[in-house]
Amino acid sequence: MDHPVIKDLNFRYACKKYDAAKRIPADKIAIIKEAMRLSPSSVNSQPWKFIIIESDEAKQRFHDTFANKFEFNQPHATEASHIILFAYNPYYTAEQYKKVVNAEVKSGHLPAEKHDEMMEKGMFFAGLNTDTKGYNGCWTKAQTYLALGNVLHTVARLGIDSTPMEGVDSELIGEIFKEELGGYVCETALALGYHLEGGDYNHGQPKARLPLEDVVTVL
Amino acid sequence: MDHPVIKDLNFRYACKKYDAAKRIPADKIAIIKEAMRLSPSSVNSQPWKFIIIESDEAKQRFHDTFANKFEFNQPHATEASHIILFAYNPYYTAEQYKKVVNAEVKSGHLPAEKHDEMMEKGMFFAGLNTDTKGYNGCWTKAQTYLALGNVLHTVARLGIDSTPMEGVDSELIGEIFKEELGGYVCETALALGYHLEGGDYNHGQPKARLPLEDVVTVL
Repeated sequence: MDHPVIKDLNFRYACKKYDAAKRIPADKIAIIKEAMRLSPSSVNSQPWKFIIIESDEAKQRFHDTFANKFEFNQPHATEASHIILFAYNPYYTAEQYKKVVNAEVKSGHLPAEKHDEMMEKGMFFAGLNTDTKGYNGCWTKAQTYLALGNVLHTVARLGIDSTPMEGVDSELIGEIFKEELGGYVCETALALGYHLEGGDYNHGQPKARLPLEDVVTVL
Repeated sequence: MDHPVIKDLNFRYACKKYDAAKRIPADKIAIIKEAMRLSPSSVNSQPWKFIIIESDEAKQRFHDTFANKFEFNQPHATEASHIILFAYNPYYTAEQYKKVVNAEVKSGHLPAEKHDEMMEKGMFFAGLNTDTKGYNGCWTKAQTYLALGNVLHTVARLGIDSTPMEGVDSELIGEIFKEELGGYVCETALALGYHLEGGDYNHGQPKARLPLEDVVTVL
């Protein structure tokens, strides 16, 4: 199948070694930022923060989060061009959703007189996924993975290599990036850049997915 | 920003009324299937099943799942061209992961002698997300949303309208599609097709997202 979609998804793989000399140009970073912002989410909740690590100083801070575990991902902290921390709000509230609905009215997407109706409808869906303690992190984390899927597709189209990492120390990230996270939780980071030519054992390997008949049923 | 990525993401919106006369051609469905299959997931776990509802008979079954709630999404069951049920495995086990690692070896992606090491490494990550009862549905659901984000981007590139729906009756879907789900859980469905010209209030509305500075921090 030679459609560009399939070509891009076959281009994408989990890069294991970055070329520290290669950097993503600013115009492509701008596209990635806007693509993240445009990610869909349930009831347009956008329960996320994306922290882009670009400066050497921020990279050093991210590097330090591997002090206790997942050392195999530590080199990406300084060798990748950029890292994005994907963080979700574990206690999404009506206060946050109000910002969304206000943005919908302001943009002209939603008539002002429907503001309250949308608040009620959206928070109904949040409520379905909220426990008695106000925790809805399973729901908001899933939305953040939706954004991750969107961004992974985006960067493949831009010819940028990437490494989604659950192998990050969420606790230490929570401490070291406490101020930027503001209570949000980061359990997943995405390294971005360009693989080291001849130095990445995972580059050019055949894709390994379950056969179509194992995962897709057509009725 | 006029890059094709941004154009496609602005094309995408939550379609609220489908043209029942328009159907997605088979070659595009084939691309969607392959794009889903190629979706990335943590440790390549692929803890998902995608059930594509195409026939009138299957659409009637999906229609029937709205008997008790979320009636506002019911029309999509028969008016959309296709519906995909996104289902996750709430109790992902080593038995399932063995199929993945075998596929990695068979494809040439993984040397046969690394089979056991990969089993251990992969199941370590699953284990981090598994409770004492073997439940890891929060983790596997998130992977399925990653696939959803990938597919939403894919269909936008193909000029296909879509509606991600958390407004589905997971319980009733579990009963009516019990055989196909085989213990997997569907809490999210995706309607696909083409909007009804002049009949969809949500078509052509401005995008409403939080401002970049609210969701993206560059360090």
